[in-house]
Amino acid sequence: MTRIIIIGGVAGGASAAVRARRLSESAEIIMLERGPYVSFANCGLPYHIGGDIPDRSALLLKTPTDFADRFNIDVRVRHEVLSIDPAARTLQIADLADNRVYTEHYDKLLLSPGANPIVPPLPGIDLPGVFTLRTITDMDRILAHLQQSDIRQVTVAGGGFIGLEVAEALVNRGVSVTLLERDSQVMAPVDPEMAAPLHQVIRRHGVELLLNAGLSAIAPCSDHVSGGNHVSGGDHKLMLTLADGRQRVTGMLLMAIGVKPETQLAQAAGLRLGARGGIQVNQRMQTSNEHIYAVGDAVETPDWVNAAPTPFPLAGPANRQGRIAADNMLGREHHYTRTQGTAICKVFDHTVGSVGINEKTLQRTGTPYQKVYVHAADHAGYYPGASTISLKLLFAPDTGAILGAQAVGKAGVDKRIDVIAVAQRAGLTVRDLEDLELTYAPPFNSARDVVNQAGMLASNVLQGDTAICHPEDIINLDPATQCLLDIRGAQELHLHGEYPNALHIPLDTLRRRLQELPADKEILIGCQSGLRGHVAYRLLIQRGFHARNLSGGFITYRAFVAQ
Amino acid sequence: MTRIIIIGGVAGGASAAVRARRLSESAEIIMLERGPYVSFANCGLPYHIGGDIPDRSALLLKTPTDFADRFNIDVRVRHEVLSIDPAARTLQIADLADNRVYTEHYDKLLLSPGANPIVPPLPGIDLPGVFTLRTITDMDRILAHLQQSDIRQVTVAGGGFIGLEVAEALVNRGVSVTLLERDSQVMAPVDPEMAAPLHQVIRRHGVELLLNAGLSAIAPCSDHVSGGNHVSGGDHKLMLTLADGRQRVTGMLLMAIGVKPETQLAQAAGLRLGARGGIQVNQRMQTSNEHIYAVGDAVETPDWVNAAPTPFPLAGPANRQGRIAADNMLGREHHYTRTQGTAICKVFDHTVGSVGINEKTLQRTGTPYQKVYVHAADHAGYYPGASTISLKLLFAPDTGAILGAQAVGKAGVDKRIDVIAVAQRAGLTVRDLEDLELTYAPPFNSARDVVNQAGMLASNVLQGDTAICHPEDIINLDPATQCLLDIRGAQELHLHGEYPNALHIPLDTLRRRLQELPADKEILIGCQSGLRGHVAYRLLIQRGFHARNLSGGFITYRAFVAQ
Repeated sequence: MTRIIIIGGVAGGASAAVRARRLSESAEIIMLERGPYVSFANCGLPYHIGGDIPDRSALLLKTPTDFADRFNIDVRVRHEVLSIDPAARTLQIADLADNRVYTEHYDKLLLSPGANPIVPPLPGIDLPGVFTLRTITDMDRILAHLQQSDIRQVTVAGGGFIGLEVAEALVNRGVSVTLLERDSQVMAPVDPEMAAPLHQVIRRHGVELLLNAGLSAIAPCSDHVSGGNHVSGGDHKLMLTLADGRQRVTGMLLMAIGVKPETQLAQAAGLRLGARGGIQVNQRMQTSNEHIYAVGDAVETPDWVNAAPTPFPLAGPANRQGRIAADNMLGREHHYTRTQGTAICKVFDHTVGSVGINEKTLQRTGTPYQKVYVHAADHAGYYPGASTISLKLLFAPDTGAILGAQAVGKAGVDKRIDVIAVAQRAGLTVRDLEDLELTYAPPFNSARDVVNQAGMLASNVLQGDTAICHPEDIINLDPATQCLLDIRGAQELHLHGEYPNALHIPLDTLRRRLQELPADKEILIGCQSGLRGHVAYRLLIQRGFHARNLSGGFITYRAFVAQ
Repeated sequence: MTRIIIIGGVAGGASAAVRARRLSESAEIIMLERGPYVSFANCGLPYHIGGDIPDRSALLLKTPTDFADRFNIDVRVRHEVLSIDPAARTLQIADLADNRVYTEHYDKLLLSPGANPIVPPLPGIDLPGVFTLRTITDMDRILAHLQQSDIRQVTVAGGGFIGLEVAEALVNRGVSVTLLERDSQVMAPVDPEMAAPLHQVIRRHGVELLLNAGLSAIAPCSDHVSGGNHVSGGDHKLMLTLADGRQRVTGMLLMAIGVKPETQLAQAAGLRLGARGGIQVNQRMQTSNEHIYAVGDAVETPDWVNAAPTPFPLAGPANRQGRIAADNMLGREHHYTRTQGTAICKVFDHTVGSVGINEKTLQRTGTPYQKVYVHAADHAGYYPGASTISLKLLFAPDTGAILGAQAVGKAGVDKRIDVIAVAQRAGLTVRDLEDLELTYAPPFNSARDVVNQAGMLASNVLQGDTAICHPEDIINLDPATQCLLDIRGAQELHLHGEYPNALHIPLDTLRRRLQELPADKEILIGCQSGLRGHVAYRLLIQRGFHARNLSGGFITYRAFVAQ
């Protein structure tokens, strides 16, 4: 009888436990969880805070009794593992309820401890009124504090997934929110010009968004210092000092600046860690000790494009890794390959999603790339409710391999990122995206999907059928050798704004006004979304002009300038 | 200078025209359209009838002037091609406005005539009050008749895409609708048990749905014969006779029983047609005459799974074929491969979508296959608004190749069909579906997507980790050798209904009640969706029982019985 012990009862751990039981009725399976709950919906926590999920118990997906009755799994909540002895294959375990410590032997051990919120050692970080959000208990504490101290204003530090979700949740509760982001953009997985529209969305919904605003100190703040109505209520007001010296009073501080793999146990047991701080595992999800496996937010897996070991704190991969670890622990060979990092976040009435690698990383790693932008309706423009999806596609300039994609919009972002995620995983190129046969009826799509369009643009670039430029080129335009041609209609200029110093010839008159163009200069063509610019480009180069089309047109240009 | 003439100004024809211009400024491009409009949104017609698209002009995507100004394309509406002389490379054209006939020479000819509604030669088919819907003009006629004759009740013949969309549109207008379907199910691209839930949806929205109800005759009907309020208004009431002799009075009849490729011109010109009645084309979209190309609903292309030439009246493929034909006409080699037939339809508050081949076809062609069903939430069940997607996945029992998929649900059907469409196109197997890394956050998905779940089930089948059965097996159960075990809780039986003659042992008590099972019989396990049944299956076979799990559980069983 194999005895499997699993440390951590959420996502990867819980998946592994039930998979192990399905594979083996004879295995003894013990799941140890430090906290009071297993298998809770950690991704749902912000939505209970915000009231979208009114019933707290909806977050408790399975109880220890469920695991026992259905799967004959011995779940021990409030049991904390103090240490691992890999040589003896034993664990020292503290039963937190009973205040006793005991030892348990394992044949196979699975580490699924997750990742901890990063809490920098700032002055005042331990003050009452400073919170993080990882567990049900954290959520309960935050809600209790909000209610008991009648908090009307909260500062969220960190504009990543959790920071944005919590900021929205608090706004939904009627709380006034300040969002501090150390970087110049929120949502680090996407590039700055893709985050720029999110900044507008966040501010439009009443959040005070401060960018380039690192936190350097937290101090208690007495009522008479804070004064005013803005931060009324609450006994634990805080004075925040930003890196640039600015000071701000807040009712409560929620730290959401990121997470780091929880590796203390692994490290103390002598397991090898990766360069990025996660537990090192092989394709079998096996650590450097053959009897110890690890999965989820605590481990590093190779990223899809560069195979660089990276921690990916994502529920989907954690679940799959749990299943794979269980297979291998029970003698079935099953491999986890690489992680694409497919991710999505609701940001008020918008969605941002991404897959693969972003331009910032491509630049940092010196990887050659090309990019195109598409701004197109999520479904047929003539059918009610259509909204624009902005898609950025990054690809290898030689092979057309899909490196990454990012999208922002009100609807249909999840679908497009999923479509590209499957294509990337399958090894399709951007040329294949052009030909994808996707569902079409007016309520769902256009006959040419956003992804088809991106594929066409990218194929045109690869085949030399178009030459594109980017906002950097417009901004750094050399008037001696280049000319910016805006082919939009006069009304559009008025409606959307103008490019700087552009010659204006609407596309529909271009063919008969070619003589107005400088024959000796490179023409950079700008339209609204980049689509008509390609028509103009094809016209101009066939008439002997040198030209490039601004990919993504004015929409991308404006986002780039706004970043 | 190449002279390209395009016959047909919608979808494929319009795509080809603008692509040709982008490739060649010097080509002369003439687009001939028999009707008064080019480039109109034919897929939007039902939605204008229903009022979702209130502005008729929103359907007119581009005018002849747009084509002239932007693309220098000579669009001639109300010009009908009477004949093609392939040897002389000339066309005889009737200018319908001027009542003159003239001849035009072409270098390359593109046929994009589309498909015609099938109008069977029934008695009375030409009566006033009988309509089809293909063009703006058809739509205008239908709307005029509805209004002028104060039609309160309409019969739609045909439960395919157009029939269902028009039925919904008419209901939205407050018209009483009878839907006649000759077959035993609507929406032929999906299998009967997947159509069964649609029948409920259609009826729940007030449509009188008659299945197995072919139309055999139409006759005028005087007021005193029809009588009553039900079919009030209208001077042109009709008496419909069904194949089984039943008679019904209706205010108006809309024929939507299908479309057939429009091939008269091609046939008269001696071009080769395929076995299914469409124009035969090669991968270059070239007909049997090297100077004549054809695209869209009029042609046959190889289906994805069997490479059998098939007409696919779908906008997406038509658009891509137009682009490909333009490339080839202008000397660029560009191939169209096969058509997956990815399709989707809104049916009131539900969606039905499919890709690839269905079970009916697999059975007819004797292709070996296996199938699994999943019924799972479109996004995290604890986040508000989740609804069930029912997915059927058909795959090769040896290789795991994806043969087809069908899905029905309120939300997210388009995304899942698209994901599987990309996977099928890329040559992924059902095993790969298990590992797809898709976007996950509670508002969008579950950590294990419906498609991941289908992939897991199918992989389990392929690997022999599960043995499944289907409703047929439950219905044909042999009590001498088999036993049906229902593992649902008592409440569920009450709520959802019961299997016939099942032994009832809830899953959570199964481990301790194994002695109640007949050791000498095969146990067919039924749960609600098939998920828990797999847990029970794994338990039973490890304890020495012979068992199979009913894929899709009671939900699929009920749909199968209801078909």
